[in-house]
Amino acid sequence: MASPCIICVAITGSLPRKAMNPAVPISVSEQVESTHEAFEAGAAICHAHVRNEDETPSSDPEKFARLKDGIEQHCPGMIVQFSTGGRSGAGKDRGGMLSLRPDMASLSVGSNNFPTRVYENPPDLIDWLAAEMRAHDIKPEVEAFDLSHILKAAEMHKAGAIAGTPYVQFVMGVKNAMPADRHVFDFYVQTVNRLFPGAPWCAAGIGREQATLNEWAIASGGHART
Amino acid sequence: MASPCIICVAITGSLPRKAMNPAVPISVSEQVESTHEAFEAGAAICHAHVRNEDETPSSDPEKFARLKDGIEQHCPGMIVQFSTGGRSGAGKDRGGMLSLRPDMASLSVGSNNFPTRVYENPPDLIDWLAAEMRAHDIKPEVEAFDLSHILKAAEMHKAGAIAGTPYVQFVMGVKNAMPADRHVFDFYVQTVNRLFPGAPWCAAGIGREQATLNEWAIASGGHART
Ligand SMILES: [Zn+2]
Ligand SMILES: [Zn+2]
Ligand SMILES: [Zn+2]
Ligand SMILES: [Zn+2]
Repeated sequence: MASPCIICVAITGSLPRKAMNPAVPISVSEQVESTHEAFEAGAAICHAHVRNEDETPSSDPEKFARLKDGIEQHCPGMIVQFSTGGRSGAGKDRGGMLSLRPDMASLSVGSNNFPTRVYENPPDLIDWLAAEMRAHDIKPEVEAFDLSHILKAAEMHKAGAIAGTPYVQFVMGVKNAMPADRHVFDFYVQTVNRLFPGAPWCAAGIGREQATLNEWAIASGGHART
Repeated sequence: MASPCIICVAITGSLPRKAMNPAVPISVSEQVESTHEAFEAGAAICHAHVRNEDETPSSDPEKFARLKDGIEQHCPGMIVQFSTGGRSGAGKDRGGMLSLRPDMASLSVGSNNFPTRVYENPPDLIDWLAAEMRAHDIKPEVEAFDLSHILKAAEMHKAGAIAGTPYVQFVMGVKNAMPADRHVFDFYVQTVNRLFPGAPWCAAGIGREQATLNEWAIASGGHART
């Protein structure tokens, strides 16, 4: 029997601005409202970034706390996942909100290129973020921007650095990282099935690759990201 | 008919010191002598780093020039490949010797983690190194530390940033990058065959993985690195 499809809504992200799309929720109350709509439409996980007043990415724990409270009030049972991605802060600032004990948090386990720069995840920062997640009983979502990140998750799990079976998200379509390539996607699925038999996984297509990745993921037994 | 196996000798590298292994050639004359021995034993390509007097990695073009002259004199017909890897310098220093027009040069086309740090290859540096190689008619050896690097080589080739069919080296066994995993190795070979049909490729196993990778590479039609 296939397990029901989990839909993960990524509200706001770290890049889009109101000038590009006036519908992008920026303030915490706009974010809660938008999450509530997605929750009523069936989304089970909310992947969250927060923003400053000027719309720049933030890693302010106070904003994350208000967002978590709002989602818990308006969307009972929804899984809250905080982003610890590098666009919203540098070094340990990226994990300053983990003591709020969200259900999940994103975890990068390697470095790669982004469109115009290096997405830096030094080994000691990865170890620290993973330790914070263990200490606060947070389930990591491993962001696989490249194949080695899946193998690294397996190594961390084996070493006890990731508790429980790793939940991996394939991120495809980021310029200068992994493109949305069907052969690679199929090998990602095979690799997860080999290393973490039976484990759920999800996929995120960036920009115009979103629909493609959702289609591939749902057809291959993975979870979708909107 | 199988093409003859090309053996690539990596003299010196960027890390080993005489204290670890007194046989490591450090001075340019020691390097030429060691390359000559490998050439007589059948090596066709010399992958070269240079060192300072104190054994630290260097990117000094003057040293590279003396090394190239020495190899050309002692090993007629041997292919000289300069390393532009990030251990030997930062930014454009890494390509300061490309005007010497070696036959080949190593080219990283993405970023990844190394044992204790990020191996940083920002997009604009990659573009500059590739442009220098085109300008000086140097064949790049694409160093694939992860799967996306092979796809990036294909994209660069399509865009004209890499002239000729990319020659890819799979680098496996670097801690925090790609481990020496047989399923991944086979997928690397499949991916090169899919993207660059008929193109030669090679593989380098780091440290204790060297013998394993040479065995896999030779059995799968690739070239070996010593
Ligand atoms: Zn997800
Ligand atoms: Zn995110
Ligand atoms: Zn080689
Ligand atoms: Zn090298």
